[in-house]
Amino acid sequence: MRLYDCETAPSPRRVRIFAAEKGIELERVPVDLAGGEQFSDEYRAVNPDCVVPTLELEDGTCIGEVVAICQYLEEVYPEPNLLGRTPAERASTQMWNAKVEQQGLWATADAFRNAAKGLKGRALPGPDAYEQIPELAVRGRARAASFLEKLDRQLDGREFIAGALYSMADITALVFVQFAQRLKIATPENATNLQRWLEAVAVRPSSNA
Amino acid sequence: MRLYDCETAPSPRRVRIFAAEKGIELERVPVDLAGGEQFSDEYRAVNPDCVVPTLELEDGTCIGEVVAICQYLEEVYPEPNLLGRTPAERASTQMWNAKVEQQGLWATADAFRNAAKGLKGRALPGPDAYEQIPELAVRGRARAASFLEKLDRQLDGREFIAGALYSMADITALVFVQFAQRLKIATPENATNLQRWLEAVAVRPSSNA
Repeated sequence: MRLYDCETAPSPRRVRIFAAEKGIELERVPVDLAGGEQFSDEYRAVNPDCVVPTLELEDGTCIGEVVAICQYLEEVYPEPNLLGRTPAERASTQMWNAKVEQQGLWATADAFRNAAKGLKGRALPGPDAYEQIPELAVRGRARAASFLEKLDRQLDGREFIAGALYSMADITALVFVQFAQRLKIATPENATNLQRWLEAVAVRPSSNA
Repeated sequence: MRLYDCETAPSPRRVRIFAAEKGIELERVPVDLAGGEQFSDEYRAVNPDCVVPTLELEDGTCIGEVVAICQYLEEVYPEPNLLGRTPAERASTQMWNAKVEQQGLWATADAFRNAAKGLKGRALPGPDAYEQIPELAVRGRARAASFLEKLDRQLDGREFIAGALYSMADITALVFVQFAQRLKIATPENATNLQRWLEAVAVRPSSNA
């Protein structure tokens, strides 16, 4: 299996960590997002949304979207489990993954894409050109900061975000928290639950993937 | 099982259609979004994000987020299958569901929430107050229109959105297309694949749920 990837982007990092936790070796194909390679005809044939990651299977099937890729990898390599062991655990993992995406990761994406000088006219990923909306960058920073506090509350008395086990929700949250740090949206000093969790998950070998 | 619900909101409609396709009868608890009931202490105990839908299980566990609720229902009531029968089908269903959410449904939500007079200061669902951003309403309409064309291309030669079977991706797309119609974002006349699909899925009895 091949992973179309970019070292610096948050979304493919989620898949790299997920695969590393399972010990899956993926052939990595770098896509030069800064150079616009995602808009090439070759890459549009792989993923018409012009985004990474994409997982290409042996038969040529291309899977986009992190949740779809991770679900596929979980089915093909079930251990260690990262999506939950019971229907209720799986629901909690999906729920928290969705919350972290929508309230955390997409907020940092708004903050980044609507402010970066190199992304003028490209405020959204994908083939269509949209102008930056500076108010959206401001709102994204506020939402991300608010969600860091929510994660701290969720981690009060819990080792991991979605339940007793490390899961996809922790991976998405780690990528969110560290991307927020890159944007100078700091993890609050008094968010002791979040700090404790971050120290634990950031030292897992997978976090270097 | 109880579904905290609202007749007029798109997200709980996705769960109602999903359950209707499976013949699951859920006890429905209406939440008066227009009257602000989602911000009450009672409802915050059910879902601290102050959004519908929420599925409450017999043991009191509350599951939020449509993807998590649908996955839970699929596991407890596997037939008829709505999430795919093989790992590749399930990946395609999750991928298309995510695309329809992010590129379609969230775009219509931006269009609606940033323009509705009754939602001033409440441009995002949830407990935090955010001002409307008029440019985001304009962008949402443009993105939704663009995504209707993309759906038309995807349905060229395909009966359903994610593969050979009707799935969660079709449900999310139906709710998106009909919400766009409510906002006067019309399905293009020449989108014949999309029109054919819409006629077929809109007459399923579940679409009245």
